Amino acid sequence: MAEPLPHSPNAEPALAIICGAGTLPFALADAASRRGRRVVLFGLRGFADPQRVAAYRHYWTWMGQFERFMRIAAEEGCRDVALIGSVTRPSLWKIRPDLRVLRLMPQIVRLFRGGDDHLQSGIGRLFEEHGFRLVGPKEIAPELTMPLGPLGSRVPSERDRADIALGLALLNATSPYDIGQAVVVAENHVLAVEGPEGTDHMLARVAELRGNGRVRSPAGTGVLIKAAKIGQDQRIDLPTIGPQTIEGAAAAGLAGIAVVAGSTIVAEPELIAAAADRAKLFVAGVEADEASVP
Amino acid sequence: MAEPLPHSPNAEPALAIICGAGTLPFALADAASRRGRRVVLFGLRGFADPQRVAAYRHYWTWMGQFERFMRIAAEEGCRDVALIGSVTRPSLWKIRPDLRVLRLMPQIVRLFRGGDDHLQSGIGRLFEEHGFRLVGPKEIAPELTMPLGPLGSRVPSERDRADIALGLALLNATSPYDIGQAVVVAENHVLAVEGPEGTDHMLARVAELRGNGRVRSPAGTGVLIKAAKIGQDQRIDLPTIGPQTIEGAAAAGLAGIAVVAGSTIVAEPELIAAAADRAKLFVAGVEADEASVP
Repeated sequence: MAEPLPHSPNAEPALAIICGAGTLPFALADAASRRGRRVVLFGLRGFADPQRVAAYRHYWTWMGQFERFMRIAAEEGCRDVALIGSVTRPSLWKIRPDLRVLRLMPQIVRLFRGGDDHLQSGIGRLFEEHGFRLVGPKEIAPELTMPLGPLGSRVPSERDRADIALGLALLNATSPYDIGQAVVVAENHVLAVEGPEGTDHMLARVAELRGNGRVRSPAGTGVLIKAAKIGQDQRIDLPTIGPQTIEGAAAAGLAGIAVVAGSTIVAEPELIAAAADRAKLFVAGVEADEASVP
Repeated sequence: MAEPLPHSPNAEPALAIICGAGTLPFALADAASRRGRRVVLFGLRGFADPQRVAAYRHYWTWMGQFERFMRIAAEEGCRDVALIGSVTRPSLWKIRPDLRVLRLMPQIVRLFRGGDDHLQSGIGRLFEEHGFRLVGPKEIAPELTMPLGPLGSRVPSERDRADIALGLALLNATSPYDIGQAVVVAENHVLAVEGPEGTDHMLARVAELRGNGRVRSPAGTGVLIKAAKIGQDQRIDLPTIGPQTIEGAAAAGLAGIAVVAGSTIVAEPELIAAAADRAKLFVAGVEADEASVP
């Protein structure tokens, strides 16, 4: 546990990063550090990678220890807070609520009853009502988001473009329903809509559908399309692609992956580009308004 | 193989039923016979149940033997044709095309490249262009479709009603995209959207999501909602519920099943009502306009 440091009022306020699982929290911490910003990590027990958390000034916390977080973050001079990394929708019993959270419990229980969008916007409000500014990776380090155009050497074909347009339109249509942020479309035919199972499981389903002949589009056709939900709090939960997304798309026999540029996190673009080339897939950043309504 | 019968021009024209898998073709044949209508079955090889087909005047046919079907159906005095029973989207190579179909092949290949809706409306057109009238189960035997209200003794709660309204609205939103005809919603949270995997597989997915804790709504909450797609050819592919739907919904821990009254086939309502009561589920016919937009 780190000792509080005296805070200089002239410096850019320190950034508190509440870290879930995966490598994204550290990509963000590295990017903020490169900009000369002081970074304090709050590793969520059970989620954040202990070794990588330890490389930074850090504290460990249980989900729900809001009062403690606020006290330490204030002492550390953090006004900006980022929440990043994957956190499976927590069971209420996995949260270790402190007093502040207990008092907020009725509000929190209401949050949990809605879809993820409600949960997210509720979390944002919670921080802001207590004097913190919730900031997203786009704001802190735009280089962590997907650029427009292809990452590797492959580009979408005309047919892929049509699948992408259909997928974007479908994601627009399902957006108000707070479902997943991804669909698979092949030759103008929707193969899957992501639910709470997540992108990797959805891609496994497509691989299975192809394996048992339930879909007719041949291997090498079809696109995974990901987009942020309309009105989604982009400070908290941007869609993400990583090496396992490439693997899943390749196993599903897709032609490639299209994500909305600027609104999807790609922490290690060079790695993704190389993996995409090896898997013979395109990975392309597209504009949200390339959607075509059927 | 039955010998052609002389056709009396005064009788109501005979009904040709092209039979896929399952019991629905025979429920339809029984219902039409009860109405005093002459019925001729065309069993699709590899799909239709041979024993039950044999109980009727019948012919066996491969999918794609359109010329042969037309000749026999005309000899049998059939002008009305019903297509019923499940047929997995056929591989092109599984079709045994006759000459007429070969000439129509470019058109058929185009049909296959679209979603199921395109395939269906294409099939309807194909029959009508050749002088047949395609008729649906709703027209022939409305008693095979779901009535309004509950089938068994259980009824949806207020919370279930809200889930049903959300599910109907979501199905409206995804309808133009030619995806599945079913979703699962629990406590205002969408758990699954059906794709080409079909309702049974989708329900299995929900059971798995519940088993591994990825969804938080407790067992006994959630509704399977089914609706015909807007503009779907209701003569060819109405959503269907059968005993396996009840089993799947029970395994997924749902509170019940809601389907749009009049637009969903329930071949054996008493059987379904009894199965629903045993499984402690409601099965309710609802109106399509009970949808609530979030």
